Formats: sequence, structure tokens, C-alpha cells
Amino acid sequence: MSVVPDGLIHSLEDVATHLRIDSIRATTAAGSGHPTSSASAADLVAAIFFDAMRFDPDAPRSPASDRFVLSKGHAAPVLYAAWAEVGVIKRDDLTHLRDIGSDLEGHPTPRLPFVDVATGSLGQGLSAGLGLAIGARLAGTDARVFVLLGDGETAEGSVWEAAALAAHDRVDKLIAIVDVNALGQSGPTMLGHDVAAYQKRFVSFGWRAITIDGHDMRQVVGALRRARRARGAPVAIVARTTKGQGIDEVAGRENWHGKALPADMAERAIRALEQRLHHVPRPPIQRPRGKSRAMTPPAATATVPVLDASAAAATREAYGDALVRLGATNPRVVALDGDVKNSTYAERFAAAYPERFVEGFIAEQNMVSVATGLAAQGLIPFVSSFACFLSRAADQVRMAGISRSNIKLCGSHAGVSIGEDGPSQMALEDLALFRAIPESVVLYPSDAVSTDACVQLAAAHQGIAYLRTTRMKTDAVYAADEPFAIGGLKVVRESAGDRLTLVAAGITLHEALAAHDELASGGIAVRIIDCYSVKPIDAGALLAAARATGGRLLTIEDHYAEGGLGAAVLEAVGDAGVVVHRLAVREIPRSGAPKKLLERYGIGRGAIVTKVRELLGVS
Amino acid sequence: MSVVPDGLIHSLEDVATHLRIDSIRATTAAGSGHPTSSASAADLVAAIFFDAMRFDPDAPRSPASDRFVLSKGHAAPVLYAAWAEVGVIKRDDLTHLRDIGSDLEGHPTPRLPFVDVATGSLGQGLSAGLGLAIGARLAGTDARVFVLLGDGETAEGSVWEAAALAAHDRVDKLIAIVDVNALGQSGPTMLGHDVAAYQKRFVSFGWRAITIDGHDMRQVVGALRRARRARGAPVAIVARTTKGQGIDEVAGRENWHGKALPADMAERAIRALEQRLHHVPRPPIQRPRGKSRAMTPPAATATVPVLDASAAAATREAYGDALVRLGATNPRVVALDGDVKNSTYAERFAAAYPERFVEGFIAEQNMVSVATGLAAQGLIPFVSSFACFLSRAADQVRMAGISRSNIKLCGSHAGVSIGEDGPSQMALEDLALFRAIPESVVLYPSDAVSTDACVQLAAAHQGIAYLRTTRMKTDAVYAADEPFAIGGLKVVRESAGDRLTLVAAGITLHEALAAHDELASGGIAVRIIDCYSVKPIDAGALLAAARATGGRLLTIEDHYAEGGLGAAVLEAVGDAGVVVHRLAVREIPRSGAPKKLLERYGIGRGAIVTKVRELLGVS
Repeated sequence: MSVVPDGLIHSLEDVATHLRIDSIRATTAAGSGHPTSSASAADLVAAIFFDAMRFDPDAPRSPASDRFVLSKGHAAPVLYAAWAEVGVIKRDDLTHLRDIGSDLEGHPTPRLPFVDVATGSLGQGLSAGLGLAIGARLAGTDARVFVLLGDGETAEGSVWEAAALAAHDRVDKLIAIVDVNALGQSGPTMLGHDVAAYQKRFVSFGWRAITIDGHDMRQVVGALRRARRARGAPVAIVARTTKGQGIDEVAGRENWHGKALPADMAERAIRALEQRLHHVPRPPIQRPRGKSRAMTPPAATATVPVLDASAAAATREAYGDALVRLGATNPRVVALDGDVKNSTYAERFAAAYPERFVEGFIAEQNMVSVATGLAAQGLIPFVSSFACFLSRAADQVRMAGISRSNIKLCGSHAGVSIGEDGPSQMALEDLALFRAIPESVVLYPSDAVSTDACVQLAAAHQGIAYLRTTRMKTDAVYAADEPFAIGGLKVVRESAGDRLTLVAAGITLHEALAAHDELASGGIAVRIIDCYSVKPIDAGALLAAARATGGRLLTIEDHYAEGGLGAAVLEAVGDAGVVVHRLAVREIPRSGAPKKLLERYGIGRGAIVTKVRELLGVS
Repeated sequence: MSVVPDGLIHSLEDVATHLRIDSIRATTAAGSGHPTSSASAADLVAAIFFDAMRFDPDAPRSPASDRFVLSKGHAAPVLYAAWAEVGVIKRDDLTHLRDIGSDLEGHPTPRLPFVDVATGSLGQGLSAGLGLAIGARLAGTDARVFVLLGDGETAEGSVWEAAALAAHDRVDKLIAIVDVNALGQSGPTMLGHDVAAYQKRFVSFGWRAITIDGHDMRQVVGALRRARRARGAPVAIVARTTKGQGIDEVAGRENWHGKALPADMAERAIRALEQRLHHVPRPPIQRPRGKSRAMTPPAATATVPVLDASAAAATREAYGDALVRLGATNPRVVALDGDVKNSTYAERFAAAYPERFVEGFIAEQNMVSVATGLAAQGLIPFVSSFACFLSRAADQVRMAGISRSNIKLCGSHAGVSIGEDGPSQMALEDLALFRAIPESVVLYPSDAVSTDACVQLAAAHQGIAYLRTTRMKTDAVYAADEPFAIGGLKVVRESAGDRLTLVAAGITLHEALAAHDELASGGIAVRIIDCYSVKPIDAGALLAAARATGGRLLTIEDHYAEGGLGAAVLEAVGDAGVVVHRLAVREIPRSGAPKKLLERYGIGRGAIVTKVRELLGVS
């Protein structure tokens, strides 16, 4: 084992001192922020950036570049200071921290070219780092991913979801560094400075783990170099640190979380820190050696299914087939599953392209954040599970939205139409959840053709997209060449005498079509709209249909009455003087046969016919 | 250590055999369900119910009764079979499993008197069990809580959140039993039959852990008896089992998850199982010895703050004070925090009533499920965190909704008005999320008086309630004796000449009031509604206001444009021909000063004035 020369140690210590000074300056200038959380991590960050990492400052998002994820996002000042040391940020800009005109936000977001995923909601960085590492492996590079975690955030279960999967998949290019400063926001952490306890937990989850003094630069450098060399398992470096290290008036003291130092205290701290400088130039940036391989269209190891436009199909099954077809032409498509691949039909993608499939087991939070990491390597991840279980990752989806991450989520088994499994397995709030993600696209196909189109639209769209699929088989609606667009809708039944427009999507489109026919046989003509693009929604076409049919719409959705399709329609036309009636699920459903449940909860064909007759005053 | 007599072992083995037979019968009759997951757990469940537990079948929800939580909710048939053995369910009813008319749903819900929390979304049972155990401790009983987990669900991070907190809080009446059958839904689990690996994980999280053969009744009984005697730490029993044990044609085989046996296979399996019966009567039910103590109004250990109706206040701070006042008179109120108690002001409750405060650290999923467990012991838990971080527990909240759990959640730091911390800390989708929970109440106060009222209303309401609070200080609006009601609203400014009604809540009420005054000085009269009860919402009063002011409403909300206050108003009046205009946040916000952000994102006083002038055609 080679000895690290004193000169390099001093040089890195100087970098750490600069990081502390810059963190203090920036937060005191802003009047808020987290100088003490930055100070505890400064030595670790200095060594990661200027001894451990191999990266291209001009191409930080290349799969060949090592990545750094600041999972403890509140320590943003030390991150920005490090990139100022690299030269990517101007040092003068650091004091614009948290200004409305600056991209140096309170917590890091990918508005900055060197931030892969937004952090600031704790416990998500290790999962994102795992995704980045898997992405680098798919790109054929040996790039490392360094994730700096706070100790407090290891209370988040998602950290252990990531830990379990990283070890299981032997992702040995993933290096976690835990900054054990023993203090959370409002008090001491559960484990305090018991670094051995953290070490045991990581080891029990299949990692190699090292404990060090996080302020002893020689130990920090040694641990990171060992971690780089490790093979066969990911490595955790558990570093004992002091919150506010180097700021003597606050170091190790409670009640200094998230508080900027007053100007006079900041000046005293900076003067003291400057005294510690060795005045050694910082080490050079180390560039990556390898290059990433070009992605090529993969060979499917299973039959690529042909789209059959005429057959009845469950849209969940159509999703699986569509994904296989997509994967045959787009090498950037990857798929992730949460141990329900035989229900979502992601198993077909897994069979066709095993190397581009990630089995995430029953850990939806990690699965979604892994997908954000994969997306940050230029891949197009499709995450699928039961729609209700995707809500497990609501905060990860929220953060993916803030990251403008290019992930696609498919939620199957939507609504009461799943039947006997009961309410715990029914997604009845997923449209509300996904519609409220900024810039999201929400698609809800009704047959095999529209499902195939929606999968293609989602893949081609840059940004977060959600697809909702149905458990039961439903009839074919569209011909194979029917065109679909994000923001579009289809008028699937219309006549000059239509007296009302019914707006449905997915399973309720089929119920509406059945109601249409029954009403028609009674001499009542209604228009039927398939609102497959729930967000964005085609307000103009909805308005036109309403105006052509008495100024009224009736929405029907297999979703609770709040925030779903009906709300989307209302939000689109609510300022235009159109009347919108709504059928939706309005109580906690029970187990039962799907068709019985559709009627009992007022969204089946019979309920629709009754409602239409009531609205039109036809007895 | 006493030897367990052969007769008892044989008796328990017979119970297990009956549980298997009943599980097969019920699922085959239903045509769906999980016989193999039931069969792997049958020996464990038999010993838990008829040797380990002390409970009153007539009062299963008494804090004196030991509780059983089936975290692997899909094994519902074995749970129902066990309660049939107890005598609480008629055996004949078991074959109505999953019928629309039966409370024996696909996954357990509290429609059944012996189910404390709905399960079926995996990884939540240990947290609920922890809450039940803490609740029993508060009630002064020594009741145990037995939680049966599947092995696959230990991939869910929330399991490790619960494990960490249970050990940290030394909840030694909590006993986890892990049914390690090595098979998930769609394939093998990560750890297979490596029971030692599970044991190491629990030990590293501070538990005592035992490994056993889960089909050797003598080992099962011995482990459970040891677990009952344990002191100082919770105990995990890691049981090696076979999925489908006792059903020879499927035992240990993949692709039998969630599938009922065909009738002929079921008959063969039942005949074979019947051959194994010793025909020994089942052991008697063991009753609890102790009683729970009456809850008495607690003595506050800190000053109970007086409500000041005149001062400007941050509603988050008013929440903390209101909770302390509530706690002084209601001994059933408990509070939970996720390491932000100094920001949500839950710290004031912690200081006043330390024994009724649970510090949940940075683990929101566990915190919410612990609250459901506390509620199932008759307590009234108030859970608080930043509103955006409550979305981390969206699935737990969803399940709490299905459970009709009596939990209260308070989300602070809502919207862009938090300012410099940036988008990761801003809740802008929480109203959409919480409105879509069935039977939920959503309240959004605007000053100290309304916050106090909302806290009282939430506590008095039986069911899930969400309160949204604001970071910044805002002016007083109401006098101390102003009455509030769930489902109410306040017309806070009105005149005969009002030309438009503005509907606001929380922070935007103050912006609307400022806009009102500026408009008034320009001769434009507008009506202002404080829509503090977002759900249920007062549709009648909204309609009346709209009709009095030109048939139009303008909603203003510090929330994304989807699913929030504007959607709630639209859903209420959308079928009445009223026009609803909406101001909301329509892009991903940045860090910045709060007032700058309110204007930049179009919901500040200036933006409101501009919009009103535009709508009224006043230049």
C-alpha cells in the first residue's frame, strides 16, 4: 500500500479549508442555509473531488465520468464550493446562493450541469447513485459513483432498500460515504457517534464497510482509495465527524442546524480557518481514462410480439408487449420492476433484454430513484408496478419532477375494476398524484393499439410520464394505424343529434361505449370521448364537444372523485361556462367481482345509463 | 427451561393443519387468493394464536389484549381461518372469501373487529405493530404485539425504519416473525433461505434475533415463548419455511403465488392434510391478566401557551401551541415528529408532555404507520413534518384511509412561500394527495385563531384529517371567539357591490386581503372567501357567493394547478354553471425571497390585482 505524500495531504486540507470558508461566506451572505452541515463534510468532499474522482469538468454527465451525489442536499454550499474549486462555478457567484436569479438554490437541482438529481428530500441519493452506477455499467465504463450521505438520513428506509439491491446486484462501483456528525436537525441522531453500529448495518446488508475519522485527511484519502479498488461488493465509508468542524464557536453544538452565522461570527471563523492554510496548490483534476461505448440496438433473446389490433387485451399485457417492441429499436430503453413483473407484464421485457432489466424487488422508493439515476446516464427507464404501490414512491416521484427526470412510470391494476383483491390493491388516487407532478404527462390507454402508442409517446417525450393500465381484458377500440398524440383525445362516437358528451378513459371508455349502445337503442344519442391524454388535456376539443351537446359533459372515471379525470376536465373547461357532471368512486370499495364493483360504485354501464337519463330528464 | 408436552405440540399441529385446509377451501371457493402464502405461515400462526398470545376474543381491541398484525396481508385466508378457530368467525363463512357481500376481503381491513390496520401493501405491518406496542405501554399494560412478515416484504425500507426505532425506544413487547419461504410473487427473494442473513440484519438494527425451522412446532413454540420473556429489546423470529407447505403438488414451487388450487388439486391436498391430523383438541385461548389504566388528563411539564388572537403568527407555530392546549385537556392526544419538531413546533408538545411524544427521526413512512397503530389503541395521534415530506408516506396514508384510521397529519412549510430553501422543501401537491384519500378532512388555517380551531376540529373528528400550515408569519384575521366547522368557510370581506369572489386559503388569504384593499382603493369591490375547510367544502356558500358576484369565482392557491384548492372548488360547483378562474403555481419554482416568489409564480397580491382587473375588463 503506497504512502500518501504529505504534500498531497496538505493540499487537500487546504481545499477543505477553502470549502469551509466558501460555505460560511455564501450562507452568511444569503442569511440562511447550512454552514455546519457543510463544514462536517468538507474534508470528505475535498478528498472525493481532488483525489478519488476521475471526471471531465466539461462533461460531468458523461457515463465515463465518475459522479458525485450529495444525498444530504442541505449541504449544498459545500457542493457549490467544490465546483468553484474545480472551476465550473465562479467563486464570486457563490455569494448569490439562494437568490431568485441564481441557479445556486437552497438545495441542489439539475439546473446546474453537474447535478444529476435534485436532492434535499433525504434518503434518496444512494438509490440515485445506484442507478448512475448501473447506467455506467450498461455503458461499458468503469466509472465510480460517490454518494455522500448524512447520518440522520440513514433512518430513511429507502437507504436500506438501495443498500440491499446494490449488494445483491454486486454494484461494486458504488461508494457510500456517511458523514456521521451525530446531530440531526432537531436533536441527536439515534446512533450518535457509534460508527461501528453503522458499519455493522452496512455489512449485514452485504457491503464492505470501513470506519474512519472524517477529519483526518490521511484516513479519508486511504479509505477512498481502498474503496476505488474494491471488487464484488459496494463499499461504505463511515466517517466520524463534527458538525460545524473548523468553526469553533458552533462545532459539535446543537441548535446550529440550518442557520447562517452572523456576520461577525463568520468573520472570526474565516480568519481562524485562514490561519490553518498550508498554502499548497490544489491537486490537479483527474480525468477519466475510458470512454463509454455507443449504445446499439440490442438483440432480443425472446420473440418480439406483433401488435394485434383486433383482439381483446388487458392494457397491462399490451404494455409488456409494447415495451418489448420499443426495446427492439431503442437501445436506451431499460425496465424496472418491483416483484410484480408477472402482473404488469414487464417480465416480457426481462425475457427479451435481460441485461437492460433491473429487478428492484419489493422496494418502490428505491426503484424510482434508481430510475432517475439511469435517466441521468441518458437511458430511458420504464418503471412498473401496481399503480397503488407506485404511491409508495410519491416523494421520489416528486423529486424526479423537480429534477425534470426522463423517467416513465406505468401503474397497472388501476381502480375498482381489479376486483377481488380489494381496496389495498386498487389505485384510486394515482391520477391526482401524478397530475400534480410539474410538467408530467399522464396517459391512460384503453386497448392494445392505444397502449402501444402511449408507450411510444412516453418514450419519445423528454420528461416524466405516467401510464395507467387496467387489469381486465377489454375489447379492441382502434385500428392499428390510428394516430395518437400527447395532449390529444378521440371522439369515438358522435352524431349530429348527440345530447350529451361522455368523457371516459381506460376501463370506463368501455363502460361508456356499452352505455352508448344501450342508450342508442332507446333513442338517446350521446357523444363519447376517449380522454387518453389526461395531462396535458385537449381543452379545445372538450369545449367543442360540450358546446355541440348542450353545453354539458359527463366524466366517468375509475378513481376517487378528487383530483382525477373529472378534475382534469374541470380544470380545463371550468372557466368557460360549461357544466361538468361526474361519475367517480365515492367511498372505500370492497372486494368483489369486477363488474359488480363497477356498478356498485357508480361507474359501470348501468350506472352511466341511469345518470345520462337523469341528466337528460328521460324516464 | 420447561419442556413443551407432546400433547400440546400435537394439538397445535392440528390447528395448523386446519388452517391449511381452511385456506385451501376458501381460496378454491373464491377462485383466487393466496393459499401457498397461507400454508407457509400456518404453523407460525397456530402457535401465535394458541400458545403465545393472551387476548380476549370479545375485546380484541383492548389495550390489554395482545395483538396480531398480518403484515403479509395477502395471507388473509390463514388469518380468517385462525379467527374461525378462535370462534369469532363462523367456519362456513370462510368460503365467502372475496365475495362482495362478505367482510372477508382479499386483504384484511378493519371492517373486521380483529383487524387493527388494513394490510396488503407490504412492509407496513411492523410499523403499525410498533405503534400498537407503544400504545399498550402508554395504557400501562404489558400486552405483546406479534407481527407476521413475509420475507419478500423486508425489502421495503419501512421495515428497517420500524426496526431502528423499535430498538432505539426499547419496545421489547414487539415480536416480529419473518416467514422466510424464499419465494416472492414473481421469483425468488434476494436472500432466499439464508435465514442467518436476516438474523444479522435484525441484530445490526439492535434486535434480538432467533432462527428456526418454521414448520417444526416445537421450535416455533420455544422461540415464541423465549420472545415473550425477552426484555430490553424487540425480538425477531426468523423462520425458514416452504411456500405451500403441506400442499405437496405445489410446495416450494415457483409460479404458485396468488393462485387458488383447482378443485381437484384442492381435494387431494385436503385429503392428504386430513391424514396428518392427530385429532387432539385445540388448546384453550389464554386471556390477558392485566387491565389497561384509565387515561387521565396529564400534567403539562411546560407552560401551556395562551391563544393570542391579535398577534401576527406563523400558523406552524400556532399549531404547536394549539397542540399543547389540546393535550392539556385530552389525555388521548399524542404527537409524532420526523426530526423537524423545531420547524413544525411539535417540540412544544414534546416539552409539555414528553411521555406522549414519539420522536420518529427521519423516517416518515414508519411515523405514519406507527400513528395508525397508536390510533388502533384508542389514541389520537398528531403526525407533523414538512408537508412535502409527508408525501414520503403517501402509501401509508392511503392505507390509513382504507383503515379509516383516526390519525391527524399536519404538513408545515407549504408552497413557494417558504422561500429560500427551494423546491425540494415546498409542498405543492399535498392538497391533491390528501384530498384523494377517501373520507379525509383537509383543513388550511390562516392565523392563530383558525389554526387553534382546526386542531380542535381535527381532534374531535373521527377519521383521517390533514392540516396545512405556513412557514412565514401572517397577520391575525379572526377574533378569539370566531366559530369554525369542518365543511365551513368564511366570507371575510363583502359588500353589495362586489363584482367577483376571490376564494383563498392559508397564505393566499392574506395576499387576497391585500389585493382587496388595493382594488378597493381603485374603486373595485371584490368578495373574499377563506376556504379553510378544503374538504369537505361548502359548495352551497361558494355558489351563493358566485351568484352574488357575476357568476364567477377566482381561486388563489400556493399549490400546483392540479388537484388543489381550485380543483376542490371546481369539483364543488362545476355542475352548476359557475365560471371558475384559477391562480396557482404553474412551473417548478426556484429558491428566492418568499414575497418575490409569490409574485413570480402568480399568486401574490400584485398578481391577484392584475388578474382581477383583467377578468373585470378594467385597465
